[in-house]
Amino acid sequence: MSQIGTLATVARSSSGESVLERVVRVLEAFTPSDRALTVGELSRRAGLPAATGSRMVADMVEHGLLARDADRRVRVGTRLWELASRASPTLSLRELAMPVLEELHGHVGHHVQLGVLDGEQVLFVERLSADQAVINYTRIAARLPLHASSSGEVLLAHAPADLQEQVLAGPLARFTPFTITDPAVLRRRLADIRRDGFVVCCGFLHPEATGIAVPVRDEHRQVAAAVSVIVPNDERARDHIAPLAAAARRIEQRLSAP
Amino acid sequence: MSQIGTLATVARSSSGESVLERVVRVLEAFTPSDRALTVGELSRRAGLPAATGSRMVADMVEHGLLARDADRRVRVGTRLWELASRASPTLSLRELAMPVLEELHGHVGHHVQLGVLDGEQVLFVERLSADQAVINYTRIAARLPLHASSSGEVLLAHAPADLQEQVLAGPLARFTPFTITDPAVLRRRLADIRRDGFVVCCGFLHPEATGIAVPVRDEHRQVAAAVSVIVPNDERARDHIAPLAAAARRIEQRLSAP
Repeated sequence: MSQIGTLATVARSSSGESVLERVVRVLEAFTPSDRALTVGELSRRAGLPAATGSRMVADMVEHGLLARDADRRVRVGTRLWELASRASPTLSLRELAMPVLEELHGHVGHHVQLGVLDGEQVLFVERLSADQAVINYTRIAARLPLHASSSGEVLLAHAPADLQEQVLAGPLARFTPFTITDPAVLRRRLADIRRDGFVVCCGFLHPEATGIAVPVRDEHRQVAAAVSVIVPNDERARDHIAPLAAAARRIEQRLSAP
Repeated sequence: MSQIGTLATVARSSSGESVLERVVRVLEAFTPSDRALTVGELSRRAGLPAATGSRMVADMVEHGLLARDADRRVRVGTRLWELASRASPTLSLRELAMPVLEELHGHVGHHVQLGVLDGEQVLFVERLSADQAVINYTRIAARLPLHASSSGEVLLAHAPADLQEQVLAGPLARFTPFTITDPAVLRRRLADIRRDGFVVCCGFLHPEATGIAVPVRDEHRQVAAAVSVIVPNDERARDHIAPLAAAARRIEQRLSAP
């Protein structure tokens, strides 16, 4: 049976794709702005023939990975969210940090974020926002490039050398006139972050917003995350550095507690 | 190609299991207290032969659904969390409610929770806690039975009649001497909840904790969630009813806003 089981596990279509590849492509078709799709839209986005897409959706709905709306559009299933979340190391970090993030948010207002390095980007595992907050491009489970965000610069400053060189080799996309796109400037900034323990990014992603980030170290003193605030790009922005650094220390204490 | 693709999608082992069934069983093997497992443990929990389990893990790691630790133990992958979260309706509700939950938590302390009905249980999509809070059994993405939790009773009171009858038919598990296990008493409580708009559960799950919950209605006036607080089981518990009801109204305004 284990032989047959193994065969089934790696079952591939004529295009050489495994079922798992298709599951991932179907899930990738959804975005924060397209949370519900028709089966046709979903199949096209996932690059699946209509009949295959339809069958795939039926199978995924049956197992709770997707769910159908009253109007037959398809969404990410609650069961998938539950399975992905309840034992997730990502959520574990977030839960430990949350009381500190809430306190910081009560103090700073605007946006408070917790991000981790994933591939060549920062992935945000938490964002607390206020209704009247300054503009911000992140969401929970959203990504930003490392060179253009304060969390990203902090994570890149402490990343393995080969990842740093890969990012420095470019291209470094420009979002505003203030985005750092010169590798030599970025390299100096990374050294400054390692020395200072924080970074201030004024208008890198939007001219009116300043990001400030500090590293959060785990019990082995490795940088595990970055905590950041997004505040208006004005003369008071730097007032938030000290409370942010204090919050990072408290998160570190919680990470290292038995 | 679509024929062959369809065949691959539903590829089954000799036990009649599809790849998707196995994916779900592998993910179900992880729990909040067992976030990292060896491949052997994982295979046993998922009921897979060792070779199949090993191959399944390798495939899932390759696609980011699982990740391996430095010590080769396996965890839920960050990529899976990202795919399940970024377009999740669950997280969308949670994000809209979050500023209100934070404000309520600043006021009440202890635990503030947001739960939705899923199957015959309440699934918690958010929990905010304080370090010195009274005992609480929930976690994010954890479940509780409908009859024994304040959120559960609120959701059950507004659930379809067939689900109500199914739960009332029992069995109604007892957690403390105060848990409601008499269907006639539970039926009266559900009517009271529909009349009063809130419920107070003193010691149903733990003798020292009181849960208080109110419904949150969507733009069609359907109950979409329950917001609840867990506070010490003392004479001041009922003081939290009014702030909780006010918070639910503010969440409803946000859900109905364009």
